[in-house]
Amino acid sequence: MEYKKELQRLIEDFKTNYLPSVSVDLVIFGFHDGQLKVLLLRWKGTEEWCLPGGRIRNDENLDDSAYRSLRERTGLREIFLQQFYTFGDVLRYKHIDQHETLRKLGLPEEAVHEFANRDVSVGYYALVEFENVVPTPDFFTDECRWWDINQVPTLLFDHNDMISLALKTLRRQLSYQPIGYSLLPDKFTMPDLQQLYETILGQSLDRRNFQKRMLGYGILERLEERKFGGAHKAPYLYRFDKEKYEKVLAEESLFVG
Amino acid sequence: MEYKKELQRLIEDFKTNYLPSVSVDLVIFGFHDGQLKVLLLRWKGTEEWCLPGGRIRNDENLDDSAYRSLRERTGLREIFLQQFYTFGDVLRYKHIDQHETLRKLGLPEEAVHEFANRDVSVGYYALVEFENVVPTPDFFTDECRWWDINQVPTLLFDHNDMISLALKTLRRQLSYQPIGYSLLPDKFTMPDLQQLYETILGQSLDRRNFQKRMLGYGILERLEERKFGGAHKAPYLYRFDKEKYEKVLAEESLFVG
Repeated sequence: MEYKKELQRLIEDFKTNYLPSVSVDLVIFGFHDGQLKVLLLRWKGTEEWCLPGGRIRNDENLDDSAYRSLRERTGLREIFLQQFYTFGDVLRYKHIDQHETLRKLGLPEEAVHEFANRDVSVGYYALVEFENVVPTPDFFTDECRWWDINQVPTLLFDHNDMISLALKTLRRQLSYQPIGYSLLPDKFTMPDLQQLYETILGQSLDRRNFQKRMLGYGILERLEERKFGGAHKAPYLYRFDKEKYEKVLAEESLFVG
Repeated sequence: MEYKKELQRLIEDFKTNYLPSVSVDLVIFGFHDGQLKVLLLRWKGTEEWCLPGGRIRNDENLDDSAYRSLRERTGLREIFLQQFYTFGDVLRYKHIDQHETLRKLGLPEEAVHEFANRDVSVGYYALVEFENVVPTPDFFTDECRWWDINQVPTLLFDHNDMISLALKTLRRQLSYQPIGYSLLPDKFTMPDLQQLYETILGQSLDRRNFQKRMLGYGILERLEERKFGGAHKAPYLYRFDKEKYEKVLAEESLFVG
């Protein structure tokens, strides 16, 4: 059976070339239709969902292994990726009997024990442009797709906690990380930008104040184009002035809320 | 030889009861004589210094292992301790040939290889009351003592980077972590408090503004006592109102700089 053979190969590969007891998990955020989204995987033959993740090669820096996993699941190379917390409780697998789940996948006992070992997992969050992602499942999963942040189901392991903490970190870091730059397309309207911040902060913002403050930073360049197609008057399109944006972030002075 | 026997026992213990390839390192901050201090260890028979740290037992939560190491080095139980970053570069040991250093300690080859394996290390920072600490070296070290943050020597491994990042984190978290509460004795003067913040921020603050702002938060209780012994008029002693302090922190609104 092709599947079993490939699995055997994977186990050998893990034993030989990867660090034991440490792994990486990824909270990949995208923004689409005014909603913050997160990329999830569905385990083979089950209805169980979890975050993408991976292991660290013996000869690979921790950050590089996170970039590699992110590339494998999204197809993207140039991405905002940042470590936010390392999860190391003994009982990280509270929602399921992990051994049972792995057996259901048809894994032989040896593989069950290899993969159900206790891991300390380093959490990273990524900000990606939704449009550019090609969601790609891995060997253990059937499906990889976006979920609205407000509709995420009960996930395997401690992955719901990971998403909560990633989101909390994102909020804290709004003032000094290139959140807008990473999540929005190259050209966007002022309402797009406001909606992004509102979604992340989980609260609505005053339209006039928001616009005034954002323009006050001098980080936005107003284009000659407008966005047509909506019911209202066509709004202007903007683009970030990357240099000025990074200067403001370096001063940690981009306050929005 | 008693030392070799104990070492052999330790190696067996590590192999059997601890997670491989993950460890914990601690940046322990104290405040004394108007200076921010950090606790360092000197390796047996060398002039090489490093941060305290430890490994994670198979049956132990990551946080608990950090608390255990902190207790072993300081004698303290109730302490502010927080994870700040996980260090996972392949070449974390850039300053020394780690194998050579371990051999110099008289470790047999088996032990050299056991301890010189690549680790991913989870960095924690702790805030402790200087007066209460009993600095205690571990099996591998001869000495454990405080260093002024501005006089830290070139350390083993990537430990200078760890201190820099811990300090940067401390600065960022001034507004929502109980920094003052953890680092100052129960009773302190307004100049003590100001000096603490100035040391952490690395800049001087206006005395009047600082006092006005601090009192404005309503987190300080002025005592009837004054502090005698200085050259100037005896300043008032203050104490934190813990409940109000925690409320302000929960709102992340304690701005100082």
